[in-house]
Amino acid sequence: MRYSPLLTDLYELTMMAGYLEEGMASKTAVFDLYFRNNPFEGGYAVFAGLEPALASLEALSFNAEELAYLSGLKIFKPRFIEYLQGFRFHGRVTAPPEGTVVFANEPLLTVEGTLAEVQLVETILLNIINFQTLAATKAARVCHAAAGGEVIEFGLRRAQGPDGGLSASRAACIGGCSSTSNVQAGMDYKLPVKGTHAHSWIQSFPDELTAFQAYADVFPDSTVLLVDTYNVLKSGVPNAITVARRLREQGHELRGIRLDSGDLAYLSREARRMLDQAGFPDVKIVASNELDEYVIDSIRDEGGRVDIYGVGTKLATCAGTGGVALGGVYKLVQVEDTPKLKVTSDIAKATLPGRKRVFRAIGAQGELLQDIICLEGENPHKGDTVYHPVNPLLHTEIPAGATLVDLRRVVMENGRRTVAAETLATMSGRCRSQLNLLPDGCLRFINPHRYKVSISEQLNELRCSMIKATNGKG
Amino acid sequence: MRYSPLLTDLYELTMMAGYLEEGMASKTAVFDLYFRNNPFEGGYAVFAGLEPALASLEALSFNAEELAYLSGLKIFKPRFIEYLQGFRFHGRVTAPPEGTVVFANEPLLTVEGTLAEVQLVETILLNIINFQTLAATKAARVCHAAAGGEVIEFGLRRAQGPDGGLSASRAACIGGCSSTSNVQAGMDYKLPVKGTHAHSWIQSFPDELTAFQAYADVFPDSTVLLVDTYNVLKSGVPNAITVARRLREQGHELRGIRLDSGDLAYLSREARRMLDQAGFPDVKIVASNELDEYVIDSIRDEGGRVDIYGVGTKLATCAGTGGVALGGVYKLVQVEDTPKLKVTSDIAKATLPGRKRVFRAIGAQGELLQDIICLEGENPHKGDTVYHPVNPLLHTEIPAGATLVDLRRVVMENGRRTVAAETLATMSGRCRSQLNLLPDGCLRFINPHRYKVSISEQLNELRCSMIKATNGKG
Repeated sequence: MRYSPLLTDLYELTMMAGYLEEGMASKTAVFDLYFRNNPFEGGYAVFAGLEPALASLEALSFNAEELAYLSGLKIFKPRFIEYLQGFRFHGRVTAPPEGTVVFANEPLLTVEGTLAEVQLVETILLNIINFQTLAATKAARVCHAAAGGEVIEFGLRRAQGPDGGLSASRAACIGGCSSTSNVQAGMDYKLPVKGTHAHSWIQSFPDELTAFQAYADVFPDSTVLLVDTYNVLKSGVPNAITVARRLREQGHELRGIRLDSGDLAYLSREARRMLDQAGFPDVKIVASNELDEYVIDSIRDEGGRVDIYGVGTKLATCAGTGGVALGGVYKLVQVEDTPKLKVTSDIAKATLPGRKRVFRAIGAQGELLQDIICLEGENPHKGDTVYHPVNPLLHTEIPAGATLVDLRRVVMENGRRTVAAETLATMSGRCRSQLNLLPDGCLRFINPHRYKVSISEQLNELRCSMIKATNGKG
Repeated sequence: MRYSPLLTDLYELTMMAGYLEEGMASKTAVFDLYFRNNPFEGGYAVFAGLEPALASLEALSFNAEELAYLSGLKIFKPRFIEYLQGFRFHGRVTAPPEGTVVFANEPLLTVEGTLAEVQLVETILLNIINFQTLAATKAARVCHAAAGGEVIEFGLRRAQGPDGGLSASRAACIGGCSSTSNVQAGMDYKLPVKGTHAHSWIQSFPDELTAFQAYADVFPDSTVLLVDTYNVLKSGVPNAITVARRLREQGHELRGIRLDSGDLAYLSREARRMLDQAGFPDVKIVASNELDEYVIDSIRDEGGRVDIYGVGTKLATCAGTGGVALGGVYKLVQVEDTPKLKVTSDIAKATLPGRKRVFRAIGAQGELLQDIICLEGENPHKGDTVYHPVNPLLHTEIPAGATLVDLRRVVMENGRRTVAAETLATMSGRCRSQLNLLPDGCLRFINPHRYKVSISEQLNELRCSMIKATNGKG
């Protein structure tokens, strides 16, 4: 798939033109992409979007129409338009694999190359990584709430346009959803697709039972009946049981019923009881209607008997506390051999200068203990003192018994991918196993345990000295 | 542009296959697309997304790859795949023009055609109209808060993927934004594009003044300097003034400065004072950083002197109270000559049956007085009693002196557009003038005045009698 290189903020192009004019375009530069706060006020995020991000870099080039448009803006000199004509991305990208559990302040992508090329790609990388990481994280939270219950992604109709929906489906399945209603996503990403009928199917027939029977006649082995068009317990479930009996007489089994309104905890308990009494303990109960992790939690708390959750709007739009965007940023950390820093009056917004690595300290059972950000070339060891990424007065030690694993690898070199594409199943498997290895309380929705992300002594000293040096600068 | 017909929930296809199997596929049917609550707990919405929605219908067809995928799902009979092979949308669409101010419960799109075709297009229509209407509404709110100050859309990096960003830019400019940072949107929708430089530009140079001067050298007539990399008032603004003086000596003028952190009300007041004292009263102050209608309101309340607002994340993601989705629905209201109703236990979710028209009662000065939904063929008059759309006990009268205007027109007939495409400027002009003609208080952010949307006596009677008749149905 080709992403237009004009899918960018104008200032990437004006800066690029400026660097060219100043003779700085081919200086080498390093940018880090990271976020400052875990999304949804939660304890973690699930990294996603790498594959489409790399695809966008590999395909980056300007066609004649795009160059003519830029030229017509009367902002750029002809020399810059000529420069863009043969432009390709030749940089290096370092990143964790998708589905990795990640945390605030850790460099996710590190992008190295010429100042011109690494500046240009800021917007598209943020666009892709920000949303997919956010949606994968939301899905992981929803699936955690479902506690083993299946979660189907239903969000296309409320997503931000067609590929908003596609990205959401992809990311949702990395985060733990089993399938999607989005047929295009099924085709593009080889995901299972699910769905049966809407209220309109029922309304198109003279009555509910006729509508149920007609649907079951057409799809005798995959029927899930929507039971809330008139009255769930007085009409929908009894009619569904009638149809289930007829199906069984013909050698088929009703797959499930779907509840889409009302008190889902109560209705699912009652429906379960009625289905069980009628001899249909294997008919699944699907629930939908503005579900998110909190609603699912409350349904389970109240003894709801939902087997499968259809989650749409709140997943595709990533609704939740702490805003509906990841807030990922892309910051310059080095030019040639000089580490760079952005200060501002708020230390939480100060960047971590220099080329860096991220290590994960892993315990004997594979459990995640702590992450450490250090400078390129450093080799952190157990027992080393490491510092809070924002507050230099707080420090801790790398635990004894930890194994340190490099969280990231080079995934693109000279503008070409250096690792094979993974399946979404591999990514979602990685996500699931890492979530299971997090410290207790990290998965909690309210005031979660804060997983420790520290910076090495050398990195801390570099940053502190640079902050001191810039007081008075400018 | 081609939208894949697989950009749909699977159940649209299973229902379509079911209708075909039941011999019902070519029955005529009518669906209404509408929302039940004004977004952001506000007093109105701005209708947007029609043009891309119609484009998606006109281009609807299945290619060989898509048919092979569907066939491979093993859900559908060969007969259905054959049916899809030559499938095109031949229906009729009725809608208001984009930029029209609309309200909860009013049919926006009415889609008529065969049951099969009007069912299939549900998801893509909701996807496009839901998000664009939501984003246009958010933009209108932000622009209202800016009270004549210019608003630039900056959201691409936080939007849901590339075309989430494109849709947001388009809708934002319908709702009142003057321009966008999204270069692709500029090209595709002929919008002005804006942007200068980021913190990384400053960091790439030895100091702020050198960076400012370098940028001004390259773009002497369009420079806006970002002044918060080190310290806004001690370094950024003084350095910007130095550069402004040098530019003036060379016959140019600095365009503006941009504040991207800190107390924007205070900093903009101080920056304004410093710029004015230095003889630069025409240098504009641009502000960005997590802005929305509430933040802009508070900046203005505190005497902030911002001329131009750059609004990104909260606009592109439509963050706000009342959820981050429009919640538009698409409901069957008629099959052949029979009006259809969905009841459920919640009357607010009951549909308005039958083919309908929407009239807007307009006062002598063009002011919007009231909207009336009635059955097709009805001709409402001044003085007629009309009913609350949810509560049949509440009624009012169509005001004397009102002129009744049909809010919608047929925009597609037999699957082809029947009206010429409008420019975004026409749409945003319509939006602005209608917002100005709303009753006092409708634009308020907190507890806005509720604009009256009523249903005609005939429609009310039809619905009440159908609700009575369905008690016991099912």
